[in-house]
Amino acid sequence: MPSSVQQGTGELQISTAFSVAVTGTHDASLDSGAQRFSKQLSQITGIPFRTNTSGAPTLEVHADHGREAVQKLGEDESYELTVTASGAKITAPTPLGALHGLQTFLQLVQITPSGFAVPAVTIKDQPRFQWRGLLIDVSRHFIPMDVLKRNLDGMAAVKMNVLHWHLSDDQGFRAESKKFPKLTGMGSEGKFYTQEEIRELIAYAHDRGIRIIPEFDTPGHSRSWFVGYPELASNPGPFTVENENGNQSVTDPTREETYKFMDKFVEEMGKLFPDQFFHIGGDEVDAKYWDSNPKIQAFKQAHGMKTNQDLHVYYNQRLEKILARHHKTMVGWDEILHPDLPKDIVVQSWRGQESLAKAAEQGYRGLLSYGYYVDLMWPAARHYAVDPMSGAAANLTPEQKALILGGESAQWAEWVTPENIDSHIWPRNAAIAERLWSPQNVTDVNSMYTRMHAVGLELEALGLTQYSTRDRMLQRMAGTSDITALRVLADVVEPVKDYNRWDDAKGPIDFHAPLTRLIDAAYPESDTARDFSALVQRFIQSGHKDQAAEAKIRNWLIQWRDNDAKLEPLLRESSLLQEDIPISQNLAMVAAAGLQALDYLDKGEPEPELWKAQQIAVTEVAKKPVAGLLLQVTAPIEQLVQAAGQGQAK
Amino acid sequence: MPSSVQQGTGELQISTAFSVAVTGTHDASLDSGAQRFSKQLSQITGIPFRTNTSGAPTLEVHADHGREAVQKLGEDESYELTVTASGAKITAPTPLGALHGLQTFLQLVQITPSGFAVPAVTIKDQPRFQWRGLLIDVSRHFIPMDVLKRNLDGMAAVKMNVLHWHLSDDQGFRAESKKFPKLTGMGSEGKFYTQEEIRELIAYAHDRGIRIIPEFDTPGHSRSWFVGYPELASNPGPFTVENENGNQSVTDPTREETYKFMDKFVEEMGKLFPDQFFHIGGDEVDAKYWDSNPKIQAFKQAHGMKTNQDLHVYYNQRLEKILARHHKTMVGWDEILHPDLPKDIVVQSWRGQESLAKAAEQGYRGLLSYGYYVDLMWPAARHYAVDPMSGAAANLTPEQKALILGGESAQWAEWVTPENIDSHIWPRNAAIAERLWSPQNVTDVNSMYTRMHAVGLELEALGLTQYSTRDRMLQRMAGTSDITALRVLADVVEPVKDYNRWDDAKGPIDFHAPLTRLIDAAYPESDTARDFSALVQRFIQSGHKDQAAEAKIRNWLIQWRDNDAKLEPLLRESSLLQEDIPISQNLAMVAAAGLQALDYLDKGEPEPELWKAQQIAVTEVAKKPVAGLLLQVTAPIEQLVQAAGQGQAK
Repeated sequence: MPSSVQQGTGELQISTAFSVAVTGTHDASLDSGAQRFSKQLSQITGIPFRTNTSGAPTLEVHADHGREAVQKLGEDESYELTVTASGAKITAPTPLGALHGLQTFLQLVQITPSGFAVPAVTIKDQPRFQWRGLLIDVSRHFIPMDVLKRNLDGMAAVKMNVLHWHLSDDQGFRAESKKFPKLTGMGSEGKFYTQEEIRELIAYAHDRGIRIIPEFDTPGHSRSWFVGYPELASNPGPFTVENENGNQSVTDPTREETYKFMDKFVEEMGKLFPDQFFHIGGDEVDAKYWDSNPKIQAFKQAHGMKTNQDLHVYYNQRLEKILARHHKTMVGWDEILHPDLPKDIVVQSWRGQESLAKAAEQGYRGLLSYGYYVDLMWPAARHYAVDPMSGAAANLTPEQKALILGGESAQWAEWVTPENIDSHIWPRNAAIAERLWSPQNVTDVNSMYTRMHAVGLELEALGLTQYSTRDRMLQRMAGTSDITALRVLADVVEPVKDYNRWDDAKGPIDFHAPLTRLIDAAYPESDTARDFSALVQRFIQSGHKDQAAEAKIRNWLIQWRDNDAKLEPLLRESSLLQEDIPISQNLAMVAAAGLQALDYLDKGEPEPELWKAQQIAVTEVAKKPVAGLLLQVTAPIEQLVQAAGQGQAK
Repeated sequence: MPSSVQQGTGELQISTAFSVAVTGTHDASLDSGAQRFSKQLSQITGIPFRTNTSGAPTLEVHADHGREAVQKLGEDESYELTVTASGAKITAPTPLGALHGLQTFLQLVQITPSGFAVPAVTIKDQPRFQWRGLLIDVSRHFIPMDVLKRNLDGMAAVKMNVLHWHLSDDQGFRAESKKFPKLTGMGSEGKFYTQEEIRELIAYAHDRGIRIIPEFDTPGHSRSWFVGYPELASNPGPFTVENENGNQSVTDPTREETYKFMDKFVEEMGKLFPDQFFHIGGDEVDAKYWDSNPKIQAFKQAHGMKTNQDLHVYYNQRLEKILARHHKTMVGWDEILHPDLPKDIVVQSWRGQESLAKAAEQGYRGLLSYGYYVDLMWPAARHYAVDPMSGAAANLTPEQKALILGGESAQWAEWVTPENIDSHIWPRNAAIAERLWSPQNVTDVNSMYTRMHAVGLELEALGLTQYSTRDRMLQRMAGTSDITALRVLADVVEPVKDYNRWDDAKGPIDFHAPLTRLIDAAYPESDTARDFSALVQRFIQSGHKDQAAEAKIRNWLIQWRDNDAKLEPLLRESSLLQEDIPISQNLAMVAAAGLQALDYLDKGEPEPELWKAQQIAVTEVAKKPVAGLLLQVTAPIEQLVQAAGQGQAK
């Protein structure tokens, strides 16, 4: 949602004669951005534009001056977009703003009774936060270049401007180092990005107004470093990335060789990644590997360190000096926050607005990621409600608030593959992007969902696969392209939330296992369940009088009640679907309960004794996760049962 | 369907430990084929295979000797595949056969209650015909490299071995010539393949055991040549590819400069395309441009030519000599057949088995394309019933029959774009591929459909888009991702058949117009209509006693009757869907008629006077095409109405 929108009269038709022209400063990324825009508009509308158009362009894009060769934090991203029935114009101080304007134009395109058109409008827009990022973990599951590229297209569409590339973790080191070739040579199982590919992705992102920040997590989460370089670890090893275990060690901060290694490494990576900022992780250091090493204990004593945090701070201080020598600004997770570190570092909070506020109070810049972990399967509305300036941050002074640079959503990759990662990030990430771009008072949830669904459709047209991949996965599970009944079930379930899937795994995760179950294909948020719930609220609030709502509720319930009979034979024949037999039965059961409830409400009859208690028992069963899936229509059906039960109580 | 299949006992499980190894002759295309196989098996099953497996491979692939550097017509393509519960082995004389064996293995993979598995089996297999091709026209609509590549993957899956690349026609010249740069410079609107891309595609095809034959259509269908080189034409020009008109001219066969041009051109293209065969088109020469040119008339008289066919033969003879000088064998359409041409040319029949037989009788080799035009929207069964050896060809001697090399399906590109071409070719092309590979007596239609649908699913997993693109197009038309009701309609319609769409266009086709209507998204063949029709036959043949069939029929009819109410508001709001309002209404009407028919049949009551006549009138209306679409469930519903009507007649 732009910061200012003024509706005009009429609309601009999109025809085969549509054309776009860049005026003002010529800039390579704006020129290619305009070309890309033209291709994307064609993908969205299916209209092949004539290449030989003459005369005035339909859309003029104007940037006052150029942009930095290496994109900087805080560059002007504002733009103005004017659309009238006869043409459109984007003006912006910089190409970055102009690129955003082009994306806004795409989002205004809609099918109408008279063709594709953009409504007349005047928009003045700029971001609320200057750092709007998405973290993609490529260590737990390797994500190939083409998938990263299409996700950068998605980020550009929602005006995110930082890709936080989580390039190393216990399970794999993914960035080629020429100085330390064993990092990927032994620590990646052959799955890594060459330096050429890294440069290619940085250029691709730059073209779209997106900075790329590398993260090399240290001293924890760094088992993959130790496979090739066990001397860096606090215990002897050997180490491997091929099994399923956790970290197995942390970096030894007491050896001078560690800092020589890091110096060379930061020098090399600092040149490869031109961005000012360099993320060193710093989270979740398992100090038991320090405790069990007598040399490290001796070092602590000799240096008067009382706690392992002291040792961690020492490590971070040394590391920060190395970064500074190579002209890089340190970014790290909450745990690195300590007054002994210089004030120019940036703290990224995965724990909450409190650590963000605490950092700001001490004069540190901060980023919020707490509340934006898309791997936790929250509904978009829940992410949307999290504001970097709320909670403890709300009480900061204006100067302190200015230190909060923005935030980052995070796609940790324990449970995603290249196949399904799009549907885990999108379209929900658009809601987080809007939180970070739009004014703080833009909070209406229904309005957000309308925009989010429109963006979801746009992204699919641009080549993201968050919708189409689900059908392909369902077809695989079913062994047939006739997945109508399976889709009915898939539409009303969601994966379990928060860390329940981790907990259910009951032990180490096998990162080589297929992720091909219904839990892997299901959308994190069920639109059907959300719509159905809204219908039930409408019906109940009408005093059970809204017949249109009731008819729609009935249609859903009948479909769900009858679905299991069609689906069960298919579930039985597939090893991937057998675990879902109970949830399909649960859907039939609760739907039948809902239909009975409607019947009692219609007749105004008291329901039989014990009926309500029985149905509530049914819904209680159906609320329990099955095969990692929640049946998300259970709660609104329970409301219907409760409503029918209240009838008797009168 | 392989030529010999022997079922074994048990099945081979596909686990993360699955591995493939090549033994025998080492060959680059077999090595990369085995790697590709591994990736494809992973795409199909979603199982990431371990790369560090040791011990015996699960699947051993063995080729006795190598293959030709340039793939030749008639190379051995046979293979044997043995699968047991403990492992599998492919043996073949050449890598070509081994590659086919790998594809057969992929097609045997199925989901079972205990995981993905391949049933134990012994297969001995070889092709019936040595030339099994697919023609893709890239002139009428340009088809980008990535789309061609995935279609080559599809061809490899169904063991087709020739891509006939229709590179030039009136509407565009698509292959870069360095000697004649204006061919693409002026005749392609910037949409063409560079020589580097052409070499890349040839290598890609070679890797998959596929030959690429270029077609440069001449002297007709060649307006695009004349834009840059008007001196080649029989009338003065100027010419353009940018408007919608037809051919505007044909090549002037009377000027020596034409042959100098063709000599240089064939020399260049003959080196670029290494295959032995070179297709010169030769079809549909519009002789009015010769008739109206006095110089050409004078030439004919001077050379004693009576007919324009004489002039065409003269042209072909000169052209054939040029090809022979550059070591190429001429291929052309029916029209080139003439006893004055040498016996080594190949005639491709678009007119029927008769011209094929005629050619064979005269000692010419032939290819059948008649009956295999997938752009005509025939059901797969109709293509499948066409055999190169049937009709007039059935009466040939064995020696003459041996001259029939095989056949080619053809995707002419008047009505396809890169977006929807996959769904026009696939999965129906698999039925044609089977006709050309499998024994002549493999003709059971239901069995073919089972295999075709399995291949369709496989291809979608491998990256073809014949199913997923429809949903994306429906979403565009609808302006929403909620396309459930639109899908119900789309599932029961088919585009009009044969050349009705050309006829409906009533004039020149605008090749720059979007192809984004329901007719462009609908599958050429409706599985739902086919299944529904089978149900109705089952029900009627049971004397209306098969209750299970009746229940399913009823479910369908109720869904169709009620669908228009849900769909109509959406159709009304979209310029792309408004034309489909009547067909959605028709579906509701005929479904209601079908339900009434079932009611009368159930009650055994005589239906009211005039009822049958009224309902037949309804079905007559519904049979008429709407917006280029046929409502394919009308005929079986009419059968229900007829059956109910007969009840009264008793």
